[in-house]
Amino acid sequence: MKLLKISCLLGLLTALFLFANIAIAADDCLSCHQGKTPATVALWQSSAHGDKVTCVECHGSDHAAMLRGEGLVPATVCGKCHEQAFHEHSASRHGMGLHSGWGCTRNLTSRNPAECRFCHEEGSTLPKTTVQCARFQMQSAEMREIGCNRCHRVESSCASCHTGHMTDAKIVRDPGVCAKCHMGPDHPQWEMWQTSQHGTLYPVIGAERAPDCQRCHMSKGTHNVSFGITATPGGVPFPEPVYSEKRQQMLTICSECHAKGLAQRELTAADAVRVQSTALTATADKIVWDLYDRGKLQPMPADRPPHPLSGPTLVTDSQLLYEDTSAIERLLFKMKKYDWAKAVKGAYHQNPAYAHWYGNAELKMDLIDIRSEATRLLGEKAAPLESRPVTKAAGIEEELRVLKKRFERKELTEEVYLQEKAKLLDGM
Amino acid sequence: MKLLKISCLLGLLTALFLFANIAIAADDCLSCHQGKTPATVALWQSSAHGDKVTCVECHGSDHAAMLRGEGLVPATVCGKCHEQAFHEHSASRHGMGLHSGWGCTRNLTSRNPAECRFCHEEGSTLPKTTVQCARFQMQSAEMREIGCNRCHRVESSCASCHTGHMTDAKIVRDPGVCAKCHMGPDHPQWEMWQTSQHGTLYPVIGAERAPDCQRCHMSKGTHNVSFGITATPGGVPFPEPVYSEKRQQMLTICSECHAKGLAQRELTAADAVRVQSTALTATADKIVWDLYDRGKLQPMPADRPPHPLSGPTLVTDSQLLYEDTSAIERLLFKMKKYDWAKAVKGAYHQNPAYAHWYGNAELKMDLIDIRSEATRLLGEKAAPLESRPVTKAAGIEEELRVLKKRFERKELTEEVYLQEKAKLLDGM
Amino acid sequence: MKLLKISCLLGLLTALFLFANIAIAADDCLSCHQGKTPATVALWQSSAHGDKVTCVECHGSDHAAMLRGEGLVPATVCGKCHEQAFHEHSASRHGMGLHSGWGCTRNLTSRNPAECRFCHEEGSTLPKTTVQCARFQMQSAEMREIGCNRCHRVESSCASCHTGHMTDAKIVRDPGVCAKCHMGPDHPQWEMWQTSQHGTLYPVIGAERAPDCQRCHMSKGTHNVSFGITATPGGVPFPEPVYSEKRQQMLTICSECHAKGLAQRELTAADAVRVQSTALTATADKIVWDLYDRGKLQPMPADRPPHPLSGPTLVTDSQLLYEDTSAIERLLFKMKKYDWAKAVKGAYHQNPAYAHWYGNAELKMDLIDIRSEATRLLGEKAAPLESRPVTKAAGIEEELRVLKKRFERKELTEEVYLQEKAKLLDGM
Repeated sequence: MKLLKISCLLGLLTALFLFANIAIAADDCLSCHQGKTPATVALWQSSAHGDKVTCVECHGSDHAAMLRGEGLVPATVCGKCHEQAFHEHSASRHGMGLHSGWGCTRNLTSRNPAECRFCHEEGSTLPKTTVQCARFQMQSAEMREIGCNRCHRVESSCASCHTGHMTDAKIVRDPGVCAKCHMGPDHPQWEMWQTSQHGTLYPVIGAERAPDCQRCHMSKGTHNVSFGITATPGGVPFPEPVYSEKRQQMLTICSECHAKGLAQRELTAADAVRVQSTALTATADKIVWDLYDRGKLQPMPADRPPHPLSGPTLVTDSQLLYEDTSAIERLLFKMKKYDWAKAVKGAYHQNPAYAHWYGNAELKMDLIDIRSEATRLLGEKAAPLESRPVTKAAGIEEELRVLKKRFERKELTEEVYLQEKAKLLDGM
Repeated sequence: MKLLKISCLLGLLTALFLFANIAIAADDCLSCHQGKTPATVALWQSSAHGDKVTCVECHGSDHAAMLRGEGLVPATVCGKCHEQAFHEHSASRHGMGLHSGWGCTRNLTSRNPAECRFCHEEGSTLPKTTVQCARFQMQSAEMREIGCNRCHRVESSCASCHTGHMTDAKIVRDPGVCAKCHMGPDHPQWEMWQTSQHGTLYPVIGAERAPDCQRCHMSKGTHNVSFGITATPGGVPFPEPVYSEKRQQMLTICSECHAKGLAQRELTAADAVRVQSTALTATADKIVWDLYDRGKLQPMPADRPPHPLSGPTLVTDSQLLYEDTSAIERLLFKMKKYDWAKAVKGAYHQNPAYAHWYGNAELKMDLIDIRSEATRLLGEKAAPLESRPVTKAAGIEEELRVLKKRFERKELTEEVYLQEKAKLLDGM
Repeated sequence: MKLLKISCLLGLLTALFLFANIAIAADDCLSCHQGKTPATVALWQSSAHGDKVTCVECHGSDHAAMLRGEGLVPATVCGKCHEQAFHEHSASRHGMGLHSGWGCTRNLTSRNPAECRFCHEEGSTLPKTTVQCARFQMQSAEMREIGCNRCHRVESSCASCHTGHMTDAKIVRDPGVCAKCHMGPDHPQWEMWQTSQHGTLYPVIGAERAPDCQRCHMSKGTHNVSFGITATPGGVPFPEPVYSEKRQQMLTICSECHAKGLAQRELTAADAVRVQSTALTATADKIVWDLYDRGKLQPMPADRPPHPLSGPTLVTDSQLLYEDTSAIERLLFKMKKYDWAKAVKGAYHQNPAYAHWYGNAELKMDLIDIRSEATRLLGEKAAPLESRPVTKAAGIEEELRVLKKRFERKELTEEVYLQEKAKLLDGM
C-alpha cells in the first residue's frame, strides 16, 4: 500500500516533469511558434544564437508569464555567456536604469551619506530594485512602460540596444541604436551629434575619420559607456582625482584624430560652459526658494498634491516635477532639465546651435521669465531678488524669517547667518 | 452671297479649330517645351507615361489657365487609368483634404447630424469643395497656398506624393514622401518614427524587417491610408464594432513580425495614453470655458475679430484658432493641437521621447500654465477651478449664472443642472 | 675685437636663423607630428595638398602660437592659390562673419549713412575686425568660441567648410557641410530643406533632379553664396534694380528644372509671406516701444545692465538681446529672430510645416502673448494698443508726451506729429 502510494506519487511527478518538459523543449516551442510567430523564429534561426541557444535557455519555461508579457530576457541571463560585456554594462551609468537621473554620488565630496539609502541597501553597492524617480511615480502604468521603461530598462535588458532576436553587430554599431533614447528635449545627444562636424562628416567619410557615438563612448567595444565622462548623470563634476583620470581617458580617444592640446582646450572650454550654465540655474533656484520662504509660490507646496518622495515641500533638485507645481517651478524645470543639458552637452559635442541657441540663449531667456514671474508674485513694485533692499520688500520681520529658513536648510553657515542678521538689525 | 458668308464662317471656324489644335497636339507642346522646360520634358519622356500618355491627356488644352498656374492635374484625371488606387485614396482620410482636421463623424455615436452639412450637400457622401477650416480662412492667399494647400491638396492631386512627371516607384516607397507633410509641431509622425525602434533599424536592416510608413499604413500597396486606424483624424475613437474591426486590421500587420499578444498589449497601452491625454485637455478646456462663462477671458470673444465659422463666441474644438484669441486660449491651442498629438501618436509609434517628454510632460506643463493664468485672471485670491468653493469665488449669483450657461450649451443634463442649482441654494 | 664681436653676432644670428629653420622645415614638422598627431599627418598626406603644400606654408612657423591654439589657417593664406574662390567668398555674405546679422546696408534706400561706421573705416569697403554684435559681446570667452565663432569664423577660415586637412570634394558637396551652421531655432534652413519636396527626394533620386544646398546657392561651383538672394542677411529686401537682378539670377537656377513662370509665382508668393511676417513683427515692435515710452517695461532699460552697443535704451533691431531684458522684449526676440525666419525662409524653401506651423502660427501666437503681457503691464483695464482711446489710457498729458517721443525718434514726420497733437487737444 505504501509502495503503491509512492509509485503513484512518482508517476505523478514523472507526468508533471514530462509535461513541464513538453512545455520547455525547444522543438516544442518551434512546433507552435513557427506558425504563430514565424518572423521571430526566422530572426532567431538566422542569428548567431540560432544553432547554439534555445528559446528556453533565454526565456525560461513559464509560458503563462510570457503570455502576460513578462517574457523579457533579463541581462543576467545574457551575462551567463557574455560575462565581460555584462559587467562593463552593469558598472556603467547604463546599469543604473531609472536611477540614472539621480546618479551615484559616492565620488562627490558634497555627498550626504544619508543619500545612499535612496538606491542601496545598507552596506551594499548594488542598486535596489525600487524605483527612486519622483517623475516615474507620478505617471500612469502605461506611460511608465512606454515613456519611462522603454529606455530605462537598459539597466536590465540587453535587448534595449541589441534587439530581441537579431545578433547582427551592425545594428549596435549604428548611431541609430543610441538615438532611440538619447534624443529629445531632455538630452538631445543624437541631434547635436548629427549636426556637429563629427555627425555631418560621418555619412560622407565614415566612422573611422568622423566618429559616431560608439567610437568615443564605447571605445574598443567596451560596454562601459561612462568611460571618460567627468560628471554624474545629474551633471555634477567628479572631484579629483576621479575627474582627471576620466578626462585623460577621453583625451586618449580624442588623440586618435586630434592633437591632444586642441582636444584638451575644447573640453576645458566645455567645462567652463558647464560651470557658467550651472551658475544661471543656481540664480533661478535662489529666486524660487526665496519665493517659497516668503510663501509666495502660487500654489504653495502645502496647497497641492504632495511630492511623492519628499511630501508637501519645495523640491528643485533632480527630483523636480513637471506637474502639479506653480508656474515658476515649471519654468525652472524647463531651465534645469532641458536647457542646461542642451548648453552643456552641446558644448562637449561641439555643436554651436545647441551650445548657444538651444542652450545658452534659452537659459538666459528662462531667467528673464523667472525674474518676471517673481516680480509679479512679489507685487509689481518689488525689484528682482538680488538687489532687493529691505525697505523695498516686505519689512524687517519677513527678512529675518527668510534668513532663518535659509540657515535652517544649511544654505547659510551659522557665521554668515549671524552676520546677515546683525546687518538687518543694524539697518533698522 | 449667302454661300460666301457660310464659306467665310467655315474658314474662320477651321482656322480657330486649327489654332486650337496647334495649341493642344502633343508634338506641338514639345516643339515649345523642349526649349522652355527641357527638364520637365525629359522627366516625362523617361517616365512610364513617356510613350503612352500625352501632355494634353493630363493637363488639358487651356494653355492660358496653365500660364496662370492652374494646370495642376486633378486626381480624377489620374483615376481614369488608375481606378483602384483612386478609389482607395478618395475613401481614405487622404481624400478629405482641408476637411481632414475636422474628420467625418458618421461613425461616431456622439455625432450631431447637423454637422454633416459642413462637408456634404444634403444626402451626398462626396465632400463639398468649400473649405471648412477656420484656420485656413484666417490666412493670406499666399500662406493658404504654401502653408495649407501644399499638403492638403493631397485630396485632389496625386502629384502630392507621386511628384509631377516622374513615375519611379522608389519615390513613393521612401518614407521621405510621407515626411514632407507628416512632420512638424502638429503631427511629427516622421520624426517619431525616425527615432523609434522601427525607424532607427530601418536604414540598417531595411523595411522588410524594420517597417517604414508604407509597410504599416499602406499594407500590400493599398492607397487606403486609413486602414487599421481606430480614431477620426481629430482623435476621437470610433465606436464598436468599427473600432474592433480597424484594430484587427492593424494587428494583422503587426503580426507579420511580432507575436499578436505583444502587439495587442502595446496598442491597448497607447489607447490608454490617448484616454489619459484627452482627460488632461478636457480639464484645461473646462477651465477656459469657466473663464468664458464668468466674462474673464482677456479679451472676451465679443471684443475681438469674430471666429470665421462661429462668430463672436468661444471655440475650443478642432476649429480653435491660434490668432486674435486670449493668451489662455493660445495655451490651450498648443496643448490640444501639438502636445496631445505628440503624446498619443508617440505612444502608437512606440517613441518614448515623443510619448513622454514632447507629449505627456508638455501636456502637464500646459496645465500648470493654464491654471496659473486662470488664477491671475480670476484675481490672485481665487483657487484653481475644481476646488473653488462659492465663497472663495465671485458669489452665489455668478455661480448660478455660470451653471445656467453650462446647462444651456448641454454640458450638463437637466437633472444635474437642477441638482447643482439646489446645492448652491442650500449652501446660502 | 670689433671683428670678434661682429662674428659673434653673426654666429648668434646664424644660430637663431638655423633654429628657426629647424622649427619650420616640413620634414622637421613630420619628425615630431608623425608620432604626436599621426591621424592629421595621414589626412594631409592623402589629400591633394600632400605632395604640394607643406605644413609651414599654411600654418607658418610660430610653433608657440600653435600650441596656444592660434594656428588656424586664415582664408588669405588659402586665397594665395585659390584666388577666385577666395574673392567670391569674401564678397558674399559668408565674408561678413559676425557682421552677418547686421548686414551691409549700402544698397538700401532707408540706410542712415552713419551706420557705415559700425563696420567700415571712413571711406573703406573692407569690414573692420572689431565685432559689432551685441549678443556676442554679452557672452563668456568660451561661449563666444564654441557658440559664435565656430560658425561665424567662416569669414576668415576656409576650414569651416572644407575641414582642416582633407581636400576631398565630396565633403563640401554634401548638404551636411551647410547643416553644421544653417540649422537651429534662428535659421533652420537645413531642417526645412531636408523635409521639403527637394530634400525628401534628394536621397532617393540625387542632387541632379532634387537639389541640395549647393545646387541652388553655389550654382556652378561659385563661392558667392549670396547669388540670387534678394534681401540682406537681416531680411530687408534690396531696392530696385538690385532686387530684380538678384531674382533673375535665382530664376535661372530654378529654370534648370521648372517652368520659369511657376518658379516666379512661388518666389513672389514667398516675398508676400516676408512682407506679411514683417507686418506682424512691426505690430509687436510698436507695442513694445509704446510701453517704453510710457515707462511700463519691467524692468526699464535704465534699471538694468546697459546694452553693450547702445547703452541704457530700448533696442529692438538686429542687436536685440536675449538676456537682461524685460519678459516682453524676450517674447519679441523669439518672434523676430526665430519665428520670422522660420515663416519667411520656410516659404522660400517650399516647406509647408516651417512656413505655416513653425513660422506663421508661432508669429501669431507671439502677438497674442505680447498683447496679453502689454495689457497686464498697462493695468488690466487698458485695451490693447491700437484701439486704445485716450480716455481709457493714462490721460492727455501722457499721450502728448508719448507723441513727442515718437516724433523725436523720427517715427512720425513733423506733419503727422502736429496733426495727431491737434487731434488730442481737440478731443479734450
